[in-house]
Amino acid sequence: MSELTIWTYDWVPEGPRGFVRDLRLRWACEEAGLSYAVRTIPFEGRETNHLAQQPFGHMPFLKDGELEIFESGAGLLQLARKSDKLMPRDPVGEAQTLQWTIAALNSIEMVTVPWWFINLSRPKENPLAGWMKQRFDRLEAVLETRDWLAANRFTVADILMSDALRMPDKLGELEDYGALRAYVARALDRPAFQKAHRDQLAHFAAADAGRSDVRG
Amino acid sequence: MSELTIWTYDWVPEGPRGFVRDLRLRWACEEAGLSYAVRTIPFEGRETNHLAQQPFGHMPFLKDGELEIFESGAGLLQLARKSDKLMPRDPVGEAQTLQWTIAALNSIEMVTVPWWFINLSRPKENPLAGWMKQRFDRLEAVLETRDWLAANRFTVADILMSDALRMPDKLGELEDYGALRAYVARALDRPAFQKAHRDQLAHFAAADAGRSDVRG
Repeated sequence: MSELTIWTYDWVPEGPRGFVRDLRLRWACEEAGLSYAVRTIPFEGRETNHLAQQPFGHMPFLKDGELEIFESGAGLLQLARKSDKLMPRDPVGEAQTLQWTIAALNSIEMVTVPWWFINLSRPKENPLAGWMKQRFDRLEAVLETRDWLAANRFTVADILMSDALRMPDKLGELEDYGALRAYVARALDRPAFQKAHRDQLAHFAAADAGRSDVRG
Repeated sequence: MSELTIWTYDWVPEGPRGFVRDLRLRWACEEAGLSYAVRTIPFEGRETNHLAQQPFGHMPFLKDGELEIFESGAGLLQLARKSDKLMPRDPVGEAQTLQWTIAALNSIEMVTVPWWFINLSRPKENPLAGWMKQRFDRLEAVLETRDWLAANRFTVADILMSDALRMPDKLGELEDYGALRAYVARALDRPAFQKAHRDQLAHFAAADAGRSDVRG
């Protein structure tokens, strides 16, 4: 019996497959060699059907024994307490990992996710484009000097940051940023990412079989 | 000699006074009774003059003995390790505080800050308005049931969340959200907030005296 359970949707449309944030928790567990179960909440009615577990109706949330934790960033920091493969144990390395984890959430994703949200409606001009470039310029300068963000090694901060950069990368927004593109490629090349990604795609594909309305 | 140093700008224009994020760290230190020093970086050239300390050119950053930590969210979590007044020490209370801290950064501020950024240019319609309302609806439902977000008590998560809501509140965006407005008022009524806020305003006002170009 696994103590760790990652909750995600039972199914999602093709667009977000490979990007649903349970991927981050799967990836961290794979890196750390932590065993985990995956359980599901219905995608239909997702905005209100699990507000008791996740007040914004999002996924994933993590169950760790008696603890229930929503927000993928919080889940990652919780998993990092269980394995030094995700976060070093010396105070300096730990502080660096924490600050870069928060930077991914609040300095990068705070711009890239709303940029992407606006981009979905195909505006002539995206009012967040300049701001996003400014952030990428800064991060590029950092990643020109090193392979990973914190403590000279791969940490949970790299799971968050590289995952946050995947969508801009896919949409061509990293074209001028060689160090960022190389960083994302380096992260996605890790066996733990590949297994987590493959497992998420298989999870949602398997659910297609049980649905009558797929591509219907 | 204080071990804790909060770094902020030497001066900022009137608009952002009372909102510069060193406020969050001051507030946390005041809540916890932690002594701290405040030191400054020149506001002029802020986008590049302290990239070694803060790769995005932002403020604040925190020095805690040998540790240097940027991102106000990371600084708050670091301060929370020093005092149980900021975060309970039982695993459930700790996990709740962590998840709500991350929720403030990545589910609320990820929408409110870009909304505000776009709002500065006074667009006819703000493309993030509907998304922001959706998040406020959810948070309102939570805060209708309790005074503070985590562990039935005030925590560092409330410092972040209430501070994140101050700008939307000031701009009238919480008009339909009685529980959110009451929550912000409750947080701002705390003596620790009031001292931190007063100190920040005094810090920037004092710097006016040394500038020839103020309102010039």
